[in-house]
Amino acid sequence: MEYRKLKDDDAEESKKSLDDIERVGVSNLGMLGGATSLERTHWKRKSIVTFALTVLTSSQAILIVWSKRAGKYDYSVTTANFLVETLKCAFSLAALARIWNKEGVTEDNRLNTTLDEVSVYPIPAALYLVKNLLQYYIFAYVDAPGYQILKNLNIISTGVLYRIILKKKLSEIQWAAFILLCAGCTTAQLNSNSDRVLQTPLQGWVMAIVMALLSGFAGVYTEAIIKKRPARNINVQNFWLYVFGMAFNAIAILIQDFDAVMNKGFFHGYSLITTFMILNHALSGIAVSMVMKYADNIVKVYSTSVAMLLTAIVSVFLFGFHLSLAFFLGSTVLSVAVYLHSIGKPR
Amino acid sequence: MEYRKLKDDDAEESKKSLDDIERVGVSNLGMLGGATSLERTHWKRKSIVTFALTVLTSSQAILIVWSKRAGKYDYSVTTANFLVETLKCAFSLAALARIWNKEGVTEDNRLNTTLDEVSVYPIPAALYLVKNLLQYYIFAYVDAPGYQILKNLNIISTGVLYRIILKKKLSEIQWAAFILLCAGCTTAQLNSNSDRVLQTPLQGWVMAIVMALLSGFAGVYTEAIIKKRPARNINVQNFWLYVFGMAFNAIAILIQDFDAVMNKGFFHGYSLITTFMILNHALSGIAVSMVMKYADNIVKVYSTSVAMLLTAIVSVFLFGFHLSLAFFLGSTVLSVAVYLHSIGKPR
Repeated sequence: MEYRKLKDDDAEESKKSLDDIERVGVSNLGMLGGATSLERTHWKRKSIVTFALTVLTSSQAILIVWSKRAGKYDYSVTTANFLVETLKCAFSLAALARIWNKEGVTEDNRLNTTLDEVSVYPIPAALYLVKNLLQYYIFAYVDAPGYQILKNLNIISTGVLYRIILKKKLSEIQWAAFILLCAGCTTAQLNSNSDRVLQTPLQGWVMAIVMALLSGFAGVYTEAIIKKRPARNINVQNFWLYVFGMAFNAIAILIQDFDAVMNKGFFHGYSLITTFMILNHALSGIAVSMVMKYADNIVKVYSTSVAMLLTAIVSVFLFGFHLSLAFFLGSTVLSVAVYLHSIGKPR
Repeated sequence: MEYRKLKDDDAEESKKSLDDIERVGVSNLGMLGGATSLERTHWKRKSIVTFALTVLTSSQAILIVWSKRAGKYDYSVTTANFLVETLKCAFSLAALARIWNKEGVTEDNRLNTTLDEVSVYPIPAALYLVKNLLQYYIFAYVDAPGYQILKNLNIISTGVLYRIILKKKLSEIQWAAFILLCAGCTTAQLNSNSDRVLQTPLQGWVMAIVMALLSGFAGVYTEAIIKKRPARNINVQNFWLYVFGMAFNAIAILIQDFDAVMNKGFFHGYSLITTFMILNHALSGIAVSMVMKYADNIVKVYSTSVAMLLTAIVSVFLFGFHLSLAFFLGSTVLSVAVYLHSIGKPR
């Protein structure tokens, strides 16, 4: 399989990768130049991208609540997704243009690529497409709140695939923390109708598990692609990821919303909030790539889970939401999970 | 304070206590005689009493459900409590009689006592009496299901008082596990009305916290009393504890149920199930004392929490109960807590 090949190449590259990371740290990102040690630079960068992802993800959920309050969205979701990919592509190109201007074109930041490098890039986008198409069928078996709860299976699938595909170890305590993270997130989302999810028929469970595996696999595979070439500029890697994202989302428009787009126009139903949401999704997407480059999928999962808590707390002030006892209990479990993950590093 | 004195005495006794424990293990309990090492004897005994407490506690809750199904109980709870203490006293005396018969009366198993030894024994019984009286007033602020949820504060108060009074250390991971145990138990008990507990007025919270502290203090203090004299036969220690239990429960009858007992008789409203419940409470009480002697309050809390899970699972088969999603999530968190506690021993 393709990802095995990826792993094998890793070994050859690992020797030169340490120097590369330092070079990337000082030259490409620029903003942290002058840090004395490699570890400090690395830790700072990891913290910044993780923080950015957390803030963007929580504001994302708040925008969704806001847009729902403003009325049901009547735009085509596939066109919005396509624009998100296009925007991410544009941001990557803009960042590259600045770098080329400052440092000239080098082996690591040139856009040109080889078939060998680029051939794996369509895979995550293809996996997400299949997952998004499945999403339309799972609602025959599960309602929307039930699906929100089943989505927490992503946490487990990401952990398991991270272990299997990237062959990185979590300690016993970190595994325990990961189970707690999944249980805590689900508990925080409990409401009076949640028990209905237990009546999900077998087909619903199978689809939910397949979707969790697809989404976990796409995430872990993206990390493998990005980490395979540590010296390669992240903006070049993003550019290629997002180009295929655009292509696959164009396919999704054709499959799902061709008629609506032809009759009502590409931008039908767009509003100011839609624009904000697209901008936010684009920035979140870039933050996810950065987390994959400078941290990993585990950090991503923790970061988006903590974002869920922040969203709920901010919603209390913005929208007058009431927090449930289940939310407090879930938050407690989630906080303990974050703590255990941090103290449970494998030796 | 009295418990400080207890602690100071501990240091003097600690030197001879190791020999004592071995002697108790081989001679007094008898059933485990022949074990080669002290640790194995100790571990076996700890496991047996913990297992007994778990089984007794879970069957206790099942008896309560059974008695509720059979109709509301119309006996006086205080008379039942008095009989429980009397039965425990009788069991302790019977066990002592057997031991005297077999081994003769020694310094450690004689019933005679000094004022110095016996003066602390009334304290746990007095604390429980105050707690039980408070229970009548808290229902002005909290309903019964809400009170069940607030009772989980006992877990935290026991952990904190165990640390402060017995000066025993828990590792960081064990503290995390203890918070998870409390959150997991509460989550497992969630139902559609649980959120009402968040509307509890300040007086209700204060009373719930005071009750948790009283109950935690009584438990930890009992452990201190029993552990203070490791060589003393547990049945003698139990006898004195239960004698004061009888006395304080007699006071409770006078305060709460004097009229009912005088008009309708001491045993009014007793049924077969009531008899089973009294027998079960007596055996559970003895198991608790044994856990205090051979393990500790932390083991007791874990054991009774696991019993709650067993009760729910058995109830599915016995009474056709449905398990909620919250129950599964709470059980998961609780299981992880047990695991973390076991791997998180302080070094």
